[in-house]
Amino acid sequence: MIAIRRTPPWPVLTLLAFVLPSAPRAQEPFEIPRELRDNAARLAERALDSGLALEIAASLTTEIGPRLAGSEQEARAREWGVRTLEALGFADPRVQTFEIDYWTRGELDAEITAPFPQDLVATALGGSAASPPEGLEAEIVFFDSYDDLAAAATATATATATTSATATARDGVVAGRIVYVNDRMVRAQTGAGYGPANRKRQRGWIHAERLGAAALVIRSVGTSNDRFAHTGMMSLPAELERPRIAALAVSNPDADQIERMAAAGGAVRMRLRSTAGFRGRRESGNVIAELPGADLAEQIVLIGAHLDSWDQGTGAVDDAAGVAVVTAAAKLIAELPEPPRRTIRIVYFGAEEVGLRGALHYAEANAEDVPRHVIATESDFGAGRVWRFASGVSRDVDAAMDAVARELMAYGVVPGGRDVRSGGPDITPLADAGVPTVRFEQSGEDYFDLHHTPNDTLDKIDPAALAQNVAVWAAGIYLLANLDVEYRFSEAP
Amino acid sequence: MIAIRRTPPWPVLTLLAFVLPSAPRAQEPFEIPRELRDNAARLAERALDSGLALEIAASLTTEIGPRLAGSEQEARAREWGVRTLEALGFADPRVQTFEIDYWTRGELDAEITAPFPQDLVATALGGSAASPPEGLEAEIVFFDSYDDLAAAATATATATATTSATATARDGVVAGRIVYVNDRMVRAQTGAGYGPANRKRQRGWIHAERLGAAALVIRSVGTSNDRFAHTGMMSLPAELERPRIAALAVSNPDADQIERMAAAGGAVRMRLRSTAGFRGRRESGNVIAELPGADLAEQIVLIGAHLDSWDQGTGAVDDAAGVAVVTAAAKLIAELPEPPRRTIRIVYFGAEEVGLRGALHYAEANAEDVPRHVIATESDFGAGRVWRFASGVSRDVDAAMDAVARELMAYGVVPGGRDVRSGGPDITPLADAGVPTVRFEQSGEDYFDLHHTPNDTLDKIDPAALAQNVAVWAAGIYLLANLDVEYRFSEAP
Repeated sequence: MIAIRRTPPWPVLTLLAFVLPSAPRAQEPFEIPRELRDNAARLAERALDSGLALEIAASLTTEIGPRLAGSEQEARAREWGVRTLEALGFADPRVQTFEIDYWTRGELDAEITAPFPQDLVATALGGSAASPPEGLEAEIVFFDSYDDLAAAATATATATATTSATATARDGVVAGRIVYVNDRMVRAQTGAGYGPANRKRQRGWIHAERLGAAALVIRSVGTSNDRFAHTGMMSLPAELERPRIAALAVSNPDADQIERMAAAGGAVRMRLRSTAGFRGRRESGNVIAELPGADLAEQIVLIGAHLDSWDQGTGAVDDAAGVAVVTAAAKLIAELPEPPRRTIRIVYFGAEEVGLRGALHYAEANAEDVPRHVIATESDFGAGRVWRFASGVSRDVDAAMDAVARELMAYGVVPGGRDVRSGGPDITPLADAGVPTVRFEQSGEDYFDLHHTPNDTLDKIDPAALAQNVAVWAAGIYLLANLDVEYRFSEAP
Repeated sequence: MIAIRRTPPWPVLTLLAFVLPSAPRAQEPFEIPRELRDNAARLAERALDSGLALEIAASLTTEIGPRLAGSEQEARAREWGVRTLEALGFADPRVQTFEIDYWTRGELDAEITAPFPQDLVATALGGSAASPPEGLEAEIVFFDSYDDLAAAATATATATATTSATATARDGVVAGRIVYVNDRMVRAQTGAGYGPANRKRQRGWIHAERLGAAALVIRSVGTSNDRFAHTGMMSLPAELERPRIAALAVSNPDADQIERMAAAGGAVRMRLRSTAGFRGRRESGNVIAELPGADLAEQIVLIGAHLDSWDQGTGAVDDAAGVAVVTAAAKLIAELPEPPRRTIRIVYFGAEEVGLRGALHYAEANAEDVPRHVIATESDFGAGRVWRFASGVSRDVDAAMDAVARELMAYGVVPGGRDVRSGGPDITPLADAGVPTVRFEQSGEDYFDLHHTPNDTLDKIDPAALAQNVAVWAAGIYLLANLDVEYRFSEAP
């Protein structure tokens, strides 16, 4: 929890004796000046009439298309970013480069060889190793859940036990076989199902290797039953060697198919050949530009999105939509007669998908400036409507955040919590360094139908929902950049 | 039009002088005997409670999976068919073999090389040729519609005209380039959009070759904007040589992408490599079995579906669903205490997708028996609910068909027309030979989202809708097999 509360001054402490110790002090209602409210409403109105965000999303996904971290396409996307921000009149568009380990999926063939031979729709997981060049064929060992797999690996590690306790391993043998893990993701507006379902993708390989498995196969993380396999990065803890086994996801219909075969009780055998792997160091980078502020110009309101995407689709909802929303919102603010009081900084983060590399680099390279960041937030949850506004700023400005939330209610946004820990994936390193954050939370009920699949293409963006995002961001960021309050926590965490 | 009407006997002709010449004679209301009605209702009730059809569809799509006409998998599907019909107790399950020209898609790579390089999701069209082994790269020439392409080809053929009249060919040159055709399919419950949109797939290659094109690329036929490419057979008229060019479909999102690139006005270049082609002669076959009739056993009520599928999906809605529906319906009828009066013949047609090869062979090989077919119908439009009952039988039994339609209304089926020309694709050769037909018409609003794509998998079948199909088929076929009427036309067409 990064929301460190100010130590209240003495007279307030007296008051606090009469309330619960954890409750913030009572605050006077905060009045947003009429001019700011009018401007916010005007911005939202213009946003709902503007096609700029859709144009930006179309431009990025069409002219660049897929933009894997470290790839030539990601480099072209940075040029696109500088060009776009320059054309829109933002100050000092620039690239902040850094190096990453470059992983590519190469080629993958996967098929069931017994009992009923047929091809599978599958994709390699980010960070996975290649199979032997000629491929491998082995029996599948089924684990109903990540927890089952983790338990089997722990049992083996702690007591040289066989895995005979695992009902799914027919004869208790995992070594040399293909581990299959089945957790299904729960669909939810908040995306709450992603974390639990994602554990098999992130850490399944660690347990599979511990058990001596030849490869890891998972049911796709993702909620769609369309026949797309869902990719994404594996966790690569610093204390471990890189994965030595191939790891892949099969589409949900293919997972169903494998399970129907297994239900008969006989052995299910699979052949796979993957050429995935790391290919040395490559350049990535963040693209940064500003809308300079007026009297509080040294304070930065950071609005971000990520520029890289997975290579299977064209990265439309993840995250061209975010790039489009923050850029269009800032552009609308820039078109007002007066600049905002605080500086609005746009950051297109690089290499998000492969482990927040751009965000980590940003926080490190700008360490001296981190205290000047008074608000940081990111748009990285698709193109669904914003339905809630939540914050993680000093509790001394609760009343001001209430007032901002009230202004956003006109666009279908409800007031949310005060306990935001991060304003988005790429904001986490800044939040960890004590930067206040807010979130414009989007409806993500169908986000994981598209996310990280070949189906993440421009046509999936609903123009009306995208425009609503820009309206909420333009109004919200404008107010945050102009209010006469101190968002920062009184001491670093 | 195959619905040849009987010449009415003399007294009726007198009556007819007072009505429109094409109207059928007025008929007494037809009363279905109470016992038949009760049995039909009982069958429907059991069908709605039965999971048999879903089991059959699961078995075929899981144990065989994709079953391309002429492939080893199609041969295994025939064994599956005989085994299944035998296990269900049908009489004399047998295979009627024939030979076909075997086409496979091989491998396909397709990418845009300019102005914005990126991979495409594409698939070869059935019957298309391979590209040069090293692939080919060329500029795309855009045609908004099949009609535009056909007009350009006709202009060239008739007047050695250039195609400069075609606005979409930037400089009038098609030769050596890649023809792209864009018609979009209209979504409709009846599937009415398929025919018009399909012309580019069926006959586009003929015009493209006439214009000297290097290859043909079409926007996928099919209504989904999921990122799947839609395959299907090209027309191969007997009077023409086989295609010499590669022909492929790109997914709808990829087609949108290509068109956005083209909208900028510059050249769009594409590289493609396809190894599709015919690979000699291979065996296919129909699987046939009967539920023998009682006193009218020599009369055949044929209920069919097709066993082969395209190779991209597992052929669940096209047409494991049909196989499941007709088989489960006949099984329920077989479980009644008394056999039906007429013989119910189940036919799983082979090689439907590649040009109704099994249906043509069936009509030819059973030519002597064709007059014994008094009703023929097929389930081959997915797994959506039956919403209408229509017929193409002797107009002398209009009243009886009204009575059947009334019985089916309880299951949400409305009475349809009298002008059915064929009871399904595989019924066409029989209908052309004068066999009466009926149709249990299904809602097909989303059928072409799945049809001929990798996304045609078991999970797309709604068990409740499948059960409703079985209910309607069991009740309807039972009545048709037992009514005391003559469906046949009085003379051959």
